[in-house]
Amino acid sequence: MKIVLDMMGSDKGSQATKEGARLFHSRHPEIELILVGKKEELADMEGYEIVEANDVLEMDMGALEVLRRKESSMVKAINYCAENGCDAVVSAGSTGAFLSASALRLKKIEGVKRPALVTNFPNLRTGGQVTILDIGASIRNTPEELVQFALMGTLYSQAVNGIKSPKVRLLSNGAEEGKGSEEGKAAYQLLKGRTDINFQGNEEPSKVLTGDSDVIVTSGYDGNVLLKSTEGAAKAMSGLIKKAFKRSFLSKLGYLLSRKGFNEMKSTLDPRSTGGALLCGVRAVAVKGHGNSDALGFSNAIEVAYRLANKGIVESLEKAMSN
Amino acid sequence: MKIVLDMMGSDKGSQATKEGARLFHSRHPEIELILVGKKEELADMEGYEIVEANDVLEMDMGALEVLRRKESSMVKAINYCAENGCDAVVSAGSTGAFLSASALRLKKIEGVKRPALVTNFPNLRTGGQVTILDIGASIRNTPEELVQFALMGTLYSQAVNGIKSPKVRLLSNGAEEGKGSEEGKAAYQLLKGRTDINFQGNEEPSKVLTGDSDVIVTSGYDGNVLLKSTEGAAKAMSGLIKKAFKRSFLSKLGYLLSRKGFNEMKSTLDPRSTGGALLCGVRAVAVKGHGNSDALGFSNAIEVAYRLANKGIVESLEKAMSN
Repeated sequence: MKIVLDMMGSDKGSQATKEGARLFHSRHPEIELILVGKKEELADMEGYEIVEANDVLEMDMGALEVLRRKESSMVKAINYCAENGCDAVVSAGSTGAFLSASALRLKKIEGVKRPALVTNFPNLRTGGQVTILDIGASIRNTPEELVQFALMGTLYSQAVNGIKSPKVRLLSNGAEEGKGSEEGKAAYQLLKGRTDINFQGNEEPSKVLTGDSDVIVTSGYDGNVLLKSTEGAAKAMSGLIKKAFKRSFLSKLGYLLSRKGFNEMKSTLDPRSTGGALLCGVRAVAVKGHGNSDALGFSNAIEVAYRLANKGIVESLEKAMSN
Repeated sequence: MKIVLDMMGSDKGSQATKEGARLFHSRHPEIELILVGKKEELADMEGYEIVEANDVLEMDMGALEVLRRKESSMVKAINYCAENGCDAVVSAGSTGAFLSASALRLKKIEGVKRPALVTNFPNLRTGGQVTILDIGASIRNTPEELVQFALMGTLYSQAVNGIKSPKVRLLSNGAEEGKGSEEGKAAYQLLKGRTDINFQGNEEPSKVLTGDSDVIVTSGYDGNVLLKSTEGAAKAMSGLIKKAFKRSFLSKLGYLLSRKGFNEMKSTLDPRSTGGALLCGVRAVAVKGHGNSDALGFSNAIEVAYRLANKGIVESLEKAMSN
């Protein structure tokens, strides 16, 4: 298996991606990693295949501009993956740029109407994971695209989370049939008839983190609102917890006595643990790590790519699409 | 000023609404409250005007069914408000029923394209409030409706939160101009030219609780996802905090030492403190309290209705619409 890594994409610099690559390599020495980036910064990565790329993309660029930057580490990594038939490509650079370049260079799987950006959320009640898509590859999706997302999410949940028959629900403003966005209501009717998807109806946004859904299907814009609202609320709450503990001498002592539990909580919520998002529906495993990935975050992104490639998610999806 | 109260709407029963009405009355004895509900349950409310209604609406009813239930406390309260030219009506019953009955019986203000459901969120950084609309009266709104929401939100923020020139932003998947839903992008262009709205661009969902926006404008479905994701995340985090403190004898001791700060945090997050949501754009102040309102929650919902009526939000909106 060959995994191509954009070494220049993290806000934390190539030191983080290099340590991340080494960390992954120590766990999976049999996997070939191809490192794309500035030669001088990768000089100490002996034993790895290096592909030189001397340009680095900035955040928030237009799609056309991205494709013109052929010498950038991200575009070069994606191109290398496409041209050499590698299994996966991982970058922690700009999401917009990654979506544009992957969609164009990696090509869609035949039958896929629209690729989706997929990620895991922690289920804070069970300690398990819930898979959400689309979280931002599109703005509004058609009912037919949502049905394909339900299928992609099922395959992702099986491959990454090891769930045999994932419970799939549509994100909706109400639990009952007949609630939801226009496209969601139409998708509901289509999903009811599918025997290859364990469709369980609607899920309200308030239940995503504590319910029993394994896969949540939504249009990209709404998925993005769900993701970012949840991250924002969790971050704001963490700020309040810190403030509560810093209030007085006694409360600081209180923190010392209870910190084990709070450290566990912190690691449950750590965005690095999810490893990043998959662009599902293209002809390679394309994983976008968090923009501020440190070594652990980047190694987890590679791990997600590895698991997806190892389980043959691209082949499974190709097969599902040809049925 | 006359405020009509649906006394039967709360999940917690008429004991909660009765105590809530008394609590409000003790703060504002000059305001006339009209109580609508079952005569026998309201028998102990001496000195209040009682309107008998012997039917109670269930949750999640169809719009047509709601309007047929003319003897229900909610429909009767709304009708009473409309027919007697009262200033405000408050109910803690089903949101869907409240929207249907209010929109039909209270009539839209001339020029209003579409009423919006408006509420306050706590800003967890500043301790202030941020006004969000629409949170669920519609699914998808037009750009012109969103511009009207910006105006309504400005009036609400001025009346309820006392902010002179509220900073208004559009909910979006990116901070830059050009990001957002289709309708959001079009609304952006319209809002740029408005001198009567302090429009400041886009706000990402992750910044709503900790940014510096006073008003967030969005289509109803996305606003509903924002509201419910945030509530869900806050609730799940509170569960984790409890778990962390219950972990061991020492952590329980830790809680005792730091509980003051955590109680403050709890009251900041208490949904009862926001008092409920206003259906803005109809010819009376129509406030929907939380379904599980207790006495404090219901009294806060009446308080919101009082402040909005006292500041003449309906008249301000009528004036703004006629310009």
